[in-house]
Amino acid sequence: MTTLKNDRFIRALLRQPVDMTPVWMMRQAGRYLPEYKATRKKAGSFLDLCKNPELACEVTMQPLERFELDAAILFSDILTIPDAMGLGLYFAEGEGPNFKNPVQSPAAVDKLFVPDMEQELGYVMDAVRTIRKELDGRVPLIGFSGSPWTLATYMVEGSGSKDFAKVKGMLYDDPASMHKLLDVTAQAVTQYLNAQIAAGAQAVMIFDTWGGALTTRDYKSFSLNYMQQIISGLTREYEGQKIPVVIFSKGGCQWLEDQANSGADALGLDWTIDIGLARKRVGDKVALQGNMDPTVLYASPERIREEVADILKSYGHGTGHVFNLGHGIHQHVNPEHAGAFVDAVHELSKPYHK
Amino acid sequence: MTTLKNDRFIRALLRQPVDMTPVWMMRQAGRYLPEYKATRKKAGSFLDLCKNPELACEVTMQPLERFELDAAILFSDILTIPDAMGLGLYFAEGEGPNFKNPVQSPAAVDKLFVPDMEQELGYVMDAVRTIRKELDGRVPLIGFSGSPWTLATYMVEGSGSKDFAKVKGMLYDDPASMHKLLDVTAQAVTQYLNAQIAAGAQAVMIFDTWGGALTTRDYKSFSLNYMQQIISGLTREYEGQKIPVVIFSKGGCQWLEDQANSGADALGLDWTIDIGLARKRVGDKVALQGNMDPTVLYASPERIREEVADILKSYGHGTGHVFNLGHGIHQHVNPEHAGAFVDAVHELSKPYHK
Repeated sequence: MTTLKNDRFIRALLRQPVDMTPVWMMRQAGRYLPEYKATRKKAGSFLDLCKNPELACEVTMQPLERFELDAAILFSDILTIPDAMGLGLYFAEGEGPNFKNPVQSPAAVDKLFVPDMEQELGYVMDAVRTIRKELDGRVPLIGFSGSPWTLATYMVEGSGSKDFAKVKGMLYDDPASMHKLLDVTAQAVTQYLNAQIAAGAQAVMIFDTWGGALTTRDYKSFSLNYMQQIISGLTREYEGQKIPVVIFSKGGCQWLEDQANSGADALGLDWTIDIGLARKRVGDKVALQGNMDPTVLYASPERIREEVADILKSYGHGTGHVFNLGHGIHQHVNPEHAGAFVDAVHELSKPYHK
Repeated sequence: MTTLKNDRFIRALLRQPVDMTPVWMMRQAGRYLPEYKATRKKAGSFLDLCKNPELACEVTMQPLERFELDAAILFSDILTIPDAMGLGLYFAEGEGPNFKNPVQSPAAVDKLFVPDMEQELGYVMDAVRTIRKELDGRVPLIGFSGSPWTLATYMVEGSGSKDFAKVKGMLYDDPASMHKLLDVTAQAVTQYLNAQIAAGAQAVMIFDTWGGALTTRDYKSFSLNYMQQIISGLTREYEGQKIPVVIFSKGGCQWLEDQANSGADALGLDWTIDIGLARKRVGDKVALQGNMDPTVLYASPERIREEVADILKSYGHGTGHVFNLGHGIHQHVNPEHAGAFVDAVHELSKPYHK
């Protein structure tokens, strides 16, 4: 066990005192960095990069070389699990993800299985181990997965979708098949995150990118329900260290109270909600992670500082806040602006932790 | 003045007793109807159709011939105002709207002006007059506009956008220009809706499609604020008849209480919120319009009936509810399913109005 040199991120998630608010950025290893683009080019395709542990480690480390980030996040894709289930993930040039074999019938649902984590998904665990070694305790490493519902949207649609016609068609017309799909996927996600923890992930996050596309009733039944199932099956302590769990339903801020009862340690927030109000709503149950509008990074460093100051003020004094963007950093952002953001969080947050 | 043969829609918006819940569908005149596609083909482009009052009337009437709808809505585009400001609206084949001259500098903002409603936008008023004549009091006619913020997103981006980088860049870095743009646009929308009312619109709706992309602070300041400004300038009674006003911020259900204080008679709801909870939150201040997930129309007529029943039950007894989808009807929906939806609302809602 390496002792963490900077455990601010873990402490804030567990609502333990910190000296300043920890910060990281969703998609911090990404196309806004020229060095990422160079590694990506070297790797070949996006999937080649995900499946190469050495290069996945290289891009994971890149933002840490530039910015004083308080956490690293495994570089991977959210669709590795359905790919390992045999759906055939591929990315057409300039397009989002696609599956060769989408799941569009009860028979196709019946064929789904929980893949072997060290066989079909061994490249992910290798990446985790490689990154942990490279980090050498500098900051914690976050493991992650898509939520079952979010994975289901791609598995059934076969690609990204604007209106979710097929996956919601199954949800509304054949809820039994949809539940079966989500159940096997939730089992797979549980094993996947536990394998990441065993390989070295020190916190895990479940990205529910499309939970906000559901009705309130269906969010609870088809999305949150399966995240709860996962959380209840996760390794929450590993080699004497607590492993915090974060869930993030984008567009889901109307359901914060339900999320706070899910067993997660922390909730991700998109930028639409005032974080002070969110804190009032969840009380002491969970920590909060977020929530600056990522487009603020297009504004001047001065304006970025103002926005950071506003969010810190809204959250107020005390721990339980991990600063982040409300969604992934955009590819056209100037890296210097990302640096101004990270520095502003550290500098301006100190008075709130005295 | 023609007396309305069916005033259920107006009465529900004003929270007066009705015999059954009125229903209409956003985008009810649209591509899911083969007769719409035929008229569109006859017209030429989408814009040619919008600018031809006879054909705009023809497509407005088409869904009323098929379904027992309780309201007609003017067939037009939300971007007519910026087009009349000289931005040069066009639709490339298979694409969304584009502007030849997007507003991307303070100088471009300064050039914006309130167009003459009977000159540059006379074709819209002609369509309203033509449709009113054709309706002959059968059901009320809804006029509409995009909200200033929603218009601004297209005016600044020059097209649809996924991340609103340019328009939010202006909002964050040069809020004075953004307010100037929104102010002149709000003046134009006010005159535009008043001209529609003078031409015969019996209710008006403001579509704030992209309000939900803003932070809570900015939604109030850059979107709701300008809708309030418009509402305070609208003709609320015309030839002895009250003209109800509906506002609809998609993705904006966390701000319902603020919307209810805007002066609007009714709020549109997307499908993510439970309508019973929304009713509790707004009390007797406003009526509610919505909110079935449009993708339910891909399910079987039996499933559609179940969903209608659930929403009616959640809203509960009494008036103040206009049934609708939570967003526009999708182009691949079977028209018979739309019919099943409309019939289910009428049939299943009667017990709630006894």
